[in-house]
Amino acid sequence: MRNLNQDNITQAVIARLAATPDPRLKQVLTSLVQHLHAFAREVKLTEAEWAYGIDFLTRVGHTCTDQRQEFILLSDTLGLSMLTVALNNQKPEGCTEATVFGPFHVEGAPEVPHGADVANGAPGKPCEVSGHVRGPRGEAVAGAVIDVWQADADGLYDVQREGLEQPQGRAVLRSGADGGFHFKTVVAEPYPIPTDGPVGEMLTATKRHPWRPAHLHFRIQAPGYQTLVTHVFRNGDPYLDSDAVFGVRSSLLADWVEQPDGRITLDFDFVLAPQ
Amino acid sequence: MRNLNQDNITQAVIARLAATPDPRLKQVLTSLVQHLHAFAREVKLTEAEWAYGIDFLTRVGHTCTDQRQEFILLSDTLGLSMLTVALNNQKPEGCTEATVFGPFHVEGAPEVPHGADVANGAPGKPCEVSGHVRGPRGEAVAGAVIDVWQADADGLYDVQREGLEQPQGRAVLRSGADGGFHFKTVVAEPYPIPTDGPVGEMLTATKRHPWRPAHLHFRIQAPGYQTLVTHVFRNGDPYLDSDAVFGVRSSLLADWVEQPDGRITLDFDFVLAPQ
Repeated sequence: MRNLNQDNITQAVIARLAATPDPRLKQVLTSLVQHLHAFAREVKLTEAEWAYGIDFLTRVGHTCTDQRQEFILLSDTLGLSMLTVALNNQKPEGCTEATVFGPFHVEGAPEVPHGADVANGAPGKPCEVSGHVRGPRGEAVAGAVIDVWQADADGLYDVQREGLEQPQGRAVLRSGADGGFHFKTVVAEPYPIPTDGPVGEMLTATKRHPWRPAHLHFRIQAPGYQTLVTHVFRNGDPYLDSDAVFGVRSSLLADWVEQPDGRITLDFDFVLAPQ
Repeated sequence: MRNLNQDNITQAVIARLAATPDPRLKQVLTSLVQHLHAFAREVKLTEAEWAYGIDFLTRVGHTCTDQRQEFILLSDTLGLSMLTVALNNQKPEGCTEATVFGPFHVEGAPEVPHGADVANGAPGKPCEVSGHVRGPRGEAVAGAVIDVWQADADGLYDVQREGLEQPQGRAVLRSGADGGFHFKTVVAEPYPIPTDGPVGEMLTATKRHPWRPAHLHFRIQAPGYQTLVTHVFRNGDPYLDSDAVFGVRSSLLADWVEQPDGRITLDFDFVLAPQ
């Protein structure tokens, strides 16, 4: 401890974690220190780069407010969010895959009856969404709590608009006795993640575009089943192969279909994994 | 890109960095993504732990102000700061070693003549500090710009006190023709790093104490030589083997000596590495 250098400091820091009472915290911090130090050693991080990193993270923190979570956006754009989802949601064959939660979910959205218009004034092309919630053997899951949320035709979630008095493009439904549900809304469109903060600076410096392919968010909760957090992506979207947050899974693609009578419909069934 | 999972997402993120124009930025970000993902994979980071991490970093950011840098404190307490110093300051044999800069330096401190009292009212036991700035062959380095800063007997730097009208325990001196300098101040004492923020939460959860051994900070700049950022640590301090920020090097220990006439003196020579 009195002669720390680049070769022995990592072990010295890990030794200082030895008395951590929670074994899981000790494991996570020990691994974090090892990988953080391995990164600095591998690139021979300069003092100017270290100072830039401190300033960057400080600005990410200062960009976070009650309405905006720039650290989630940073995690999303570095693929850490999707990796964490993948590590924790290995579903049995045939079950609907999970994807990133994103920073735009709000707890406590209003519960609406089947057939309601959840767009609630949000701009966009009207469409009708229907589907069923099932278990892995095809059984109907009745009474599942279905959170749905989405961006509108301007590429904005309601929480990104100022002065709205009611939620738009956001609601909670319950599946019926046959597991079914249906509601009206507007067609999901691709949109750019916010680029006016430090994450936008990173995207610009790496020549990455900020676009997400069009999608509808779902969170489905039912007793006896694992909670499913996922999207339904719109087939044919130009950003399916370059989602800014790495959330696409081909099993989650679906068609918004124009019917002979002009209506646009989406039908998608969800299969929950048992708990 | 349409079937990302825990095994292929890292390569997908790295591929998205391929067009980064600055090769060094590309190298650093690629390594960062690899190590960040390797950490999450190794501990199988849970979604609750990910969410805790997002919240922790957000609070670290919100704790940073013009007067306080909690991200530097986090880097210091994880050993990243000292590792970066070690990686970038491998001095030739016989040259004074570097250590962490810390979050309490202020540019533009007042320049004072030799013999001045840099404590300037800060509480503590009076002492006299002297030394020489030399090059590796023993040559005097005249006109070196010497920044000195320290905590007082209450364990506080001036920037941690509200309402001070002038700097305390902080000044700039220039070495004389023989490389010598001397000034009056107060004896450095051990002090705890700030524990009322998220870093304090980490120290508590890992049962680590927040103390730094007593030290005097120096930054010495002279044309033709590498800038030296270092401390002089006080021999006999109880925290020399457990510095909260891993900054101790045995070559930087020195005695604050009580003289027969009651004066306390410190004499320390600095040897700069050539540029």
